[in-house]
Amino acid sequence: MLSTMMHFPLTIPHILERVQRYFPDREVVSLIPAGVNEAGQPIPGKHRYTYGQMAARAKQLANALTAAGVQKGDRVATFAVNHFRHLEAYFGIPITGAVLHTVNVRLHPEQIAYIINHAQDKILLIDNVFARMLPALLPHCPSIEKVVIMGPTPQAIPGMLDYDQWISAQPTTFDYPALDENDAAGMCYTSGTTGHPKGVVYSHRSTLLHSLASALPDALNLKMADTILPVVPMFHVNAWGLPYTAAMVGAKQVFASVFSDGASLAKLLAEEKCTRTAGVPTIWMGLLQEIQRANAAGTPYDLSLLEMLVVGGSAAPEGLIRAFDQVGLHLFHAWGMTETHPLGTCATLPPEMELESEEGYHHRAKQGIPVPLVEIRSVDGDLNDVPHDGKSMGALLVRGPWVTGGYHNNPEGSRATQVKLSDGTTWFDTGDIVTIDEKGYMSIQDRAKDLIKSGGEWISSVDLENALMGHPAIAEAAVIAAPHPKWEERPLGVLVLKAGQEQPSKEDLNAFLEGKFAKWWLPDAYVYVEQIPRTTVGKFLKRALRDQFKDFKLEG
Amino acid sequence: MLSTMMHFPLTIPHILERVQRYFPDREVVSLIPAGVNEAGQPIPGKHRYTYGQMAARAKQLANALTAAGVQKGDRVATFAVNHFRHLEAYFGIPITGAVLHTVNVRLHPEQIAYIINHAQDKILLIDNVFARMLPALLPHCPSIEKVVIMGPTPQAIPGMLDYDQWISAQPTTFDYPALDENDAAGMCYTSGTTGHPKGVVYSHRSTLLHSLASALPDALNLKMADTILPVVPMFHVNAWGLPYTAAMVGAKQVFASVFSDGASLAKLLAEEKCTRTAGVPTIWMGLLQEIQRANAAGTPYDLSLLEMLVVGGSAAPEGLIRAFDQVGLHLFHAWGMTETHPLGTCATLPPEMELESEEGYHHRAKQGIPVPLVEIRSVDGDLNDVPHDGKSMGALLVRGPWVTGGYHNNPEGSRATQVKLSDGTTWFDTGDIVTIDEKGYMSIQDRAKDLIKSGGEWISSVDLENALMGHPAIAEAAVIAAPHPKWEERPLGVLVLKAGQEQPSKEDLNAFLEGKFAKWWLPDAYVYVEQIPRTTVGKFLKRALRDQFKDFKLEG
Repeated sequence: MLSTMMHFPLTIPHILERVQRYFPDREVVSLIPAGVNEAGQPIPGKHRYTYGQMAARAKQLANALTAAGVQKGDRVATFAVNHFRHLEAYFGIPITGAVLHTVNVRLHPEQIAYIINHAQDKILLIDNVFARMLPALLPHCPSIEKVVIMGPTPQAIPGMLDYDQWISAQPTTFDYPALDENDAAGMCYTSGTTGHPKGVVYSHRSTLLHSLASALPDALNLKMADTILPVVPMFHVNAWGLPYTAAMVGAKQVFASVFSDGASLAKLLAEEKCTRTAGVPTIWMGLLQEIQRANAAGTPYDLSLLEMLVVGGSAAPEGLIRAFDQVGLHLFHAWGMTETHPLGTCATLPPEMELESEEGYHHRAKQGIPVPLVEIRSVDGDLNDVPHDGKSMGALLVRGPWVTGGYHNNPEGSRATQVKLSDGTTWFDTGDIVTIDEKGYMSIQDRAKDLIKSGGEWISSVDLENALMGHPAIAEAAVIAAPHPKWEERPLGVLVLKAGQEQPSKEDLNAFLEGKFAKWWLPDAYVYVEQIPRTTVGKFLKRALRDQFKDFKLEG
Repeated sequence: MLSTMMHFPLTIPHILERVQRYFPDREVVSLIPAGVNEAGQPIPGKHRYTYGQMAARAKQLANALTAAGVQKGDRVATFAVNHFRHLEAYFGIPITGAVLHTVNVRLHPEQIAYIINHAQDKILLIDNVFARMLPALLPHCPSIEKVVIMGPTPQAIPGMLDYDQWISAQPTTFDYPALDENDAAGMCYTSGTTGHPKGVVYSHRSTLLHSLASALPDALNLKMADTILPVVPMFHVNAWGLPYTAAMVGAKQVFASVFSDGASLAKLLAEEKCTRTAGVPTIWMGLLQEIQRANAAGTPYDLSLLEMLVVGGSAAPEGLIRAFDQVGLHLFHAWGMTETHPLGTCATLPPEMELESEEGYHHRAKQGIPVPLVEIRSVDGDLNDVPHDGKSMGALLVRGPWVTGGYHNNPEGSRATQVKLSDGTTWFDTGDIVTIDEKGYMSIQDRAKDLIKSGGEWISSVDLENALMGHPAIAEAAVIAAPHPKWEERPLGVLVLKAGQEQPSKEDLNAFLEGKFAKWWLPDAYVYVEQIPRTTVGKFLKRALRDQFKDFKLEG
C-alpha cells in the first residue's frame, strides 16, 4: 500500500528559495585579501552582503553557466578558498543540474590534473590567488572549456574572464530545470595517501538530508539566531556541508578565505559575534595559543557568544578540550569523512553527564554516537560484531542516506570499500579501527593500515601517540609498526624533540606510559627525527614513515 | 549523472533500532487510571519503563501481528488515548509493513464505523475504557478479524483478548521485512465538518522527514536532554508526530492518558521535570487557570524547566500568549493539519526580535514561517500570488514531502484539494485563508468556507471573534455570514454572554471594535445564544450556526 503523500523531491533549489524568501537580510561576511603589505603578506578587508544578494548572484551564475552551454550532469569545478563567491557557486552550479566539483587546492599539481581529468570538468572557477598555476595546469586538462577568475581579491586579472563581469549581465531570476533528488549535486575527491584520489558524488537528496541532520540540537544545533564561521575549507568535503546547512536554517555565515591563523580568527569571531565555528584540531591549537596570549596580555577577545567549536578531521586530544574549557570555550567532537558528506557521529553528552566531569571529558574525547539516519557497526575480521565494551577494537562500518555506495568511475575502489554482511545489509568500510562503549560512543583508535599487529593482537598507534605528546620533552610523536622476528610487528616510536629539551631514554618514556597501557603495548624502541612527514590535510603520513624505517631492526 | 550515495530508505525501523541502541535507559512515563474513586472518577497512577523495554515490547507486538496473519499493507487500528502501549503500537505496527490507523475516539459512532470500513482495518487494538462501545460497533465492521484490549487501565476484561498476554509469548527480536520508504506507515482520517472523513496515509519517508524537521532548533528544538509531554492525542494526527520525533532524538516521553485537566497536567509537568509540551489552546487555558490559582494560593508548581508550550490545532489569541509570559512560561505557535503530518509552520522569532516586545507578540500570535522542506503560498481566486504585506488575504497552498497528495480511495476529495499552478507545480489547498507579511510570517485569517464575502471583499470571521471575546461582557463569539440583499453577505455576531453580565447593544459592541477594523467589517447585527455548537475537536461548528441563522433578515 502506497501512502497518499505528494511527490516532493529534496533538491538544492528548495534551500535557495528558502533563504531568499525568509532570510534575505541575514548577512554573509567574508574576510578577504584587500591587498598586500610591504612584506608581501595579504592585508585583510571585509566584504559583507546579504543572503538576498547572494541568492540573486547565484541565479546570475546559474544563467551564465546555462548560457555557456553547461548541461545537466556536467561538472563545474571550483578551485577556491572560503568566500562569498564560492558560496554563490555552491548554489549557482547545482541548481542548473550541473555538478559542483570542489577541487582540493592543497593537492599536488599532478593530482589536481588527475582529478580534473577524471571528473571531466567543463568549466573552472578559480580564485585569482591560484591563477598562477593555470599555465602549468591547463595543458594537461583538455576537458576544461572555460576558466573564470573568481576571487577572493577584488581585482580582476587582465586578459582573463572575470567572474563578476561574467555574471553581471545575467538576470537575477532563474528557471529551475526538473531535478530528481538522486541527481548528482556535488563532487569531492578523497585525499588518499595511497593511489589516485577517488571521487565521491553527493546528490541533492543527500545534501538536504545531511543539512537537516547537521542542524539538529544534538548535532551542530544551527538556527536562525546563529552566526557560524566554517574554518574548514569549502574545497574539502563541502566545508562539512555548513554552507548549505546554515542557509537552510537562516544562520549568518562568516568566511575567512586565506586567513586561518589564530589572531585573524579570534578577531573575526569576536567582531562578527560568531556563535559557532568548525575546523580541524591544528586550527584550534593556533586559536587557543592566541586566546591565551591575549588573556595574559590583558587584552582578551570577547568570545562570550561563541558557544561551540566543532572539531573534526582528526581527533582532538582530551588535553585540548580541557584547555579550551579553561578559557571558557567548548570543543565538540564530530566525526566523518569525504565518503560520509561528512557528518557521521557527534560527541553530544547524554543528559546525565556533566560537561566538565571526568566522565564528561572521557566521552567528549570520543567521536560520539551517530546522528539520525546514520548507522555504524564495529566488526572483526570475520565481519562479526565486536562487543560494545569500550575496549574491543573493530573495523568501523557505516551506512546511511549520505554515505557513499562507491566511487565515481572506479569499480575497483568501490568494491574494496563496500562490505556486504550476512544479514544482507551493505556498508561502507571506513578504514578506521574503533571501539564502541556501552552507551554506544565510538572512539577512533587508528586507521586500519596504521594498526600494529603484535602476535595476533592489535595495538592502536593513535592512543600511544597522544600519550607520548603529553610528555614534557616531546613535541610530536608518531608510532608505527616495525617488523619483528617473533611478534611479526612491534611498535616503534618516532619522536620530534621540543626545542631545548634532552632526549628522554626508552626507559623514561615507557615509565611515562606505564599504567596508561598494557605492558605489551609499550614501544620496543624510539627514534628521533627533525619532523614527521604530513599529508596535504595535515595528518601524519605514516606510509612514508613506514618506508623510512622498514629496515629498522628490533631485538627478538 | 547519478550520485554515488548508497540506497538507504528512510523507514521507521531505523528510529526503533536507534532508540533501542542509544537511549535504552531513557524513560517513558504514563499517567494512567489506576482505579476509580467513590464518585466514579478515575484515580491516577503512574507507569514507568524505559525505551529499551518499549522497543522489546514493540517487537513482541510485531511478532504477534505477524503470527496473526497481518501482511504488508494491512491496516491495524488503534482506538486509544496516550500511553505506553499506544507508543508500542506506533512502532510495532509499521515495522511489520502494516499500517497504523489511529482512530479518533471523539468521532460519532457512525463515523467511526465508516472509517474502519473505509480503511478496511483488520485488527483493532482498543483501550479498555472504550470497550463498552464494541457491541454496538463490531457488527458494522466486518473487516475486523481480531480485537485486542490494550489499556490504559491495567486490568484485563474477562473473555476478551488481553494485549499484554497476547504479546507476552512472542520473542523480543524481530526480523524486519524489506520496506520501501514510500510504503504506507500510518493513516489518519480528517475530522471534517462536512461529508465523510477523508483518509490521509503517511509513509515511512514522510514520518522520518517530519521527525527530522520537527526536532530542529527553530522548530520544537527536541534533543536527548528533553522531556516532552504531548497532550495532543495520539489518536489525532499522530500526536503531531512527537512519539516518533522524541524517540529519534532520545527525549523522555510523558503521557497523560485520560487526564487533561489543568491540575493533573501541572502536577505531571512538574513531577516529571518536563521541558516541552504540546497541545491545543483550550488545554493551555485550563493549565493557565490552575497555575494562576496555585500561585495565588501560595502553592506554586515548579515548572522552571518547562521551556516551551507548543500550541496548535487552532490559533492561540495574543492575550493567552501574554498571560503565559506573565507566569514565566512561553507559548509557541505551530501550524499544521492532518494533511500535513502536521507540522507546516512555526512562529519562531527572527534573532532581531525580542520575545516580549510588541513586535514579538505581534509575530508570536501568527502561525509563522515554514519549517525546512515545506513551502507555502497564498493565492487569490485566479491562483495568482497575493502580496506579502500582512494584509492581503489569500488561500493557503502548501507542498512538501509530508504534505498529502490526495485522500485514500477518494478521487473526488483528492481532486478538490490538489491545485496545479501555471508554473506546473502542484499544491495542497488547505482551505485556510491567510495573510503573509513582509518577513514571510503567515497568519490564519479564516477557513475559506467561513469567510464572509461582502460586496466582493473578504471579511475574516476569526479576527472579529477574537476581538469580541476581548469584550468584558462576552464569553464566546462566533461571526458568520448572513445573507444580505445588497452586499450578498454581511457579518452576524453570535454571542454567549458571561454569567451575570448584561447584553451590550450593537452600538456598544461596534464602538468596542472600531479602530481595530475597517468600518465595513463591523457586524450588521448580533444575536445571543446559550452556547455555540462545537466540533469533536472543540472548534466552533460554523456550518450548524449558518444553518440555524440562514433565514436571519439583515436590513438592506
